[in-house]
Amino acid sequence: MISKKMENMVANSSAIRAMFEEGNRLAKLYGAENVYDFSLGNPNVPAPDAVKKAILDILEEEDPVALHGYTNSNAGYEDVRQAVADSLNDRFGTAFSAHNITMTVGAAGGLNVILKALLNPGDEVITFAPYFGEYRSYVNNYDGVLIAVSPNTVDFQPKLDEFEEKITPKTRAVIVNTPNNPTGVVYSEETILKIAAILEKKQKEYQTDIYLISDEPYRELAYDGVEVPYLTKYYANTIVGYSYSKSLSLPGERIGYLVIPDEAADSENLIAAANVANRILGFVNAPTLQQKIVKACLNEKTDISYYNRNRETLYQGLKESGYTCIKPEGAFYLFVKSPVEDEKAFVQAAKKYNILVVPGSSFGCPGYVRIAYCVAYETIVNALPKFALLAEEYK
Amino acid sequence: MISKKMENMVANSSAIRAMFEEGNRLAKLYGAENVYDFSLGNPNVPAPDAVKKAILDILEEEDPVALHGYTNSNAGYEDVRQAVADSLNDRFGTAFSAHNITMTVGAAGGLNVILKALLNPGDEVITFAPYFGEYRSYVNNYDGVLIAVSPNTVDFQPKLDEFEEKITPKTRAVIVNTPNNPTGVVYSEETILKIAAILEKKQKEYQTDIYLISDEPYRELAYDGVEVPYLTKYYANTIVGYSYSKSLSLPGERIGYLVIPDEAADSENLIAAANVANRILGFVNAPTLQQKIVKACLNEKTDISYYNRNRETLYQGLKESGYTCIKPEGAFYLFVKSPVEDEKAFVQAAKKYNILVVPGSSFGCPGYVRIAYCVAYETIVNALPKFALLAEEYK
Repeated sequence: MISKKMENMVANSSAIRAMFEEGNRLAKLYGAENVYDFSLGNPNVPAPDAVKKAILDILEEEDPVALHGYTNSNAGYEDVRQAVADSLNDRFGTAFSAHNITMTVGAAGGLNVILKALLNPGDEVITFAPYFGEYRSYVNNYDGVLIAVSPNTVDFQPKLDEFEEKITPKTRAVIVNTPNNPTGVVYSEETILKIAAILEKKQKEYQTDIYLISDEPYRELAYDGVEVPYLTKYYANTIVGYSYSKSLSLPGERIGYLVIPDEAADSENLIAAANVANRILGFVNAPTLQQKIVKACLNEKTDISYYNRNRETLYQGLKESGYTCIKPEGAFYLFVKSPVEDEKAFVQAAKKYNILVVPGSSFGCPGYVRIAYCVAYETIVNALPKFALLAEEYK
Repeated sequence: MISKKMENMVANSSAIRAMFEEGNRLAKLYGAENVYDFSLGNPNVPAPDAVKKAILDILEEEDPVALHGYTNSNAGYEDVRQAVADSLNDRFGTAFSAHNITMTVGAAGGLNVILKALLNPGDEVITFAPYFGEYRSYVNNYDGVLIAVSPNTVDFQPKLDEFEEKITPKTRAVIVNTPNNPTGVVYSEETILKIAAILEKKQKEYQTDIYLISDEPYRELAYDGVEVPYLTKYYANTIVGYSYSKSLSLPGERIGYLVIPDEAADSENLIAAANVANRILGFVNAPTLQQKIVKACLNEKTDISYYNRNRETLYQGLKESGYTCIKPEGAFYLFVKSPVEDEKAFVQAAKKYNILVVPGSSFGCPGYVRIAYCVAYETIVNALPKFALLAEEYK
């Protein structure tokens, strides 16, 4: 008998994963080139050549005992953390040092670490629908309660009035994700300033510390010259979670980091707690070879032109077929309005054309579907006529 | 403010880690060659050449998108899991398939995954002192209660009468670790049969399923031709946790696996729950490059001759100086009786000679200290005269 908490989890196991496995099944039946699998955010731009070069250099130069051994600190190699801090300071004018950086097993590992460090049972964590469904699982791991602000389907910027109303004395943290999965929106500086102002006001009112957790694996995937603000500069109690999954196309390798600035309330304790949580949750330390790889590749620019061409092609094509969708400025997702209210029925209909997309209900936003365009360009070109045929069914 | 559960953790942060950091400090002051740091189980036998060769081959042959991308299943690559299953079947006459294998972020990740899958708040988990202190943290993560059977200081085999008495209707699992950290003992087949018989009896009496979790990162480190029984063959409700940290000297890379046999009660649900727990705890999947490395290196024999020479030299030397200690058959630890009841005072005294060892209280066994002999042979040779001088203080 499995634990009660896991019973629910297993029963409602990720719709995204199920779709991905469905895609593999259809590919075996019809051939991969005849399946248009837009379901999983698995980057298909290869890791830059610098990654392979880094691995070869590291194998040549590093002593294997040091390379593959436990790191001195559970937070990771000090030189790697210093290099990450220096890089952030160069880019954003921040003032971090190695001390503020904890290397983590991807962003998912980092979120688990910081939530374990922060949450007491019953603590509330606010996020904005549509949101990455795993946030609910991560918060539930530590007996917190996820409170979702309802989606603003006009432009998918956060509904700030509802946000303010939903903050209570039990609100421990707010998770934002910009550029956003599943909508692709980037929060403007104006939005960030307003969120910060609301939080400052509520902290004073309730005499609590409310941490703003910025989950930013898509930071480097921003188009049209859009700037992605660095949130620690707007609000002191900000914690940043980052990952190289999308920026260096290393999602399977599990490497990212947390930033806990000195300015955050109780930062010394928080940093110590993150260190211990990293260890006792079983991560122990972020994979050592990967830490060294990211240090070597810190200045690699993500080649976003590939995703951008997909974005433009897909967006234009869907608009021409009459679909409703905002043009996303970041990440690699389109969030498209379903022609029928029950988007799960639309998802089923799409399968007839070997098109796989994810229902918006998985992100707390029914009536929409998520289309991940981290796929081959040809997949998009070949899928568009099918999307057109699918649209015809609803006219 | 950090969470209440973490407050305790941070306050009592690992004595092992603190000692390791002390070792680095002394090394900076006195030179590493003049510090005898026996505190951390960080393998100093390098990873076999086959690991480097495997990485080079993989980089040449594999498509980077497949290599560094998320795996299809959170349990890991199917071919890797099948290869692990085949290897176990060859070695132990078991009948596992890919289905029964979940690749994990080290053994620590695997233990967290299986405990999350199993434990309801208040469930009891029994282990045998002396035990790896992290078991308490892992069980606490899921609001279980760790119950320790008191140590048998004659030969450190488990006290079976006390074990039987400590099993209650709330007992969900038993964790065994053989070869053992910190004592180095290997449980005999006779011991295993008795443990299994007790568990079968109690399962019937209470009408519960009690899972035997075999934590075996030290399986390959067994000396004098001692055999390490494979526990699934003795008890149906056995789950095995393994790691390549010690066998391939890859502790920093975070790679291991869980075995959940078909014979285990509710195995289908347990396997599904482990899969989901692997994802939602933030591991997502075990690091992909490492999965491929272990597949390529499955037939590598761990070179234990290095550790064995250290074992013999240290054991003989300490005995000659009058220390009391059983001769360990496995792992890379000696568990030595402190000349004074308060072993922490002995640990402090040892520091005067730049000797670093870990107090047995960290393992639930005061009055003893753990000496990790995964160090350079010269370290042992140079430390023995210091151990002799230290022993003189107590005569």
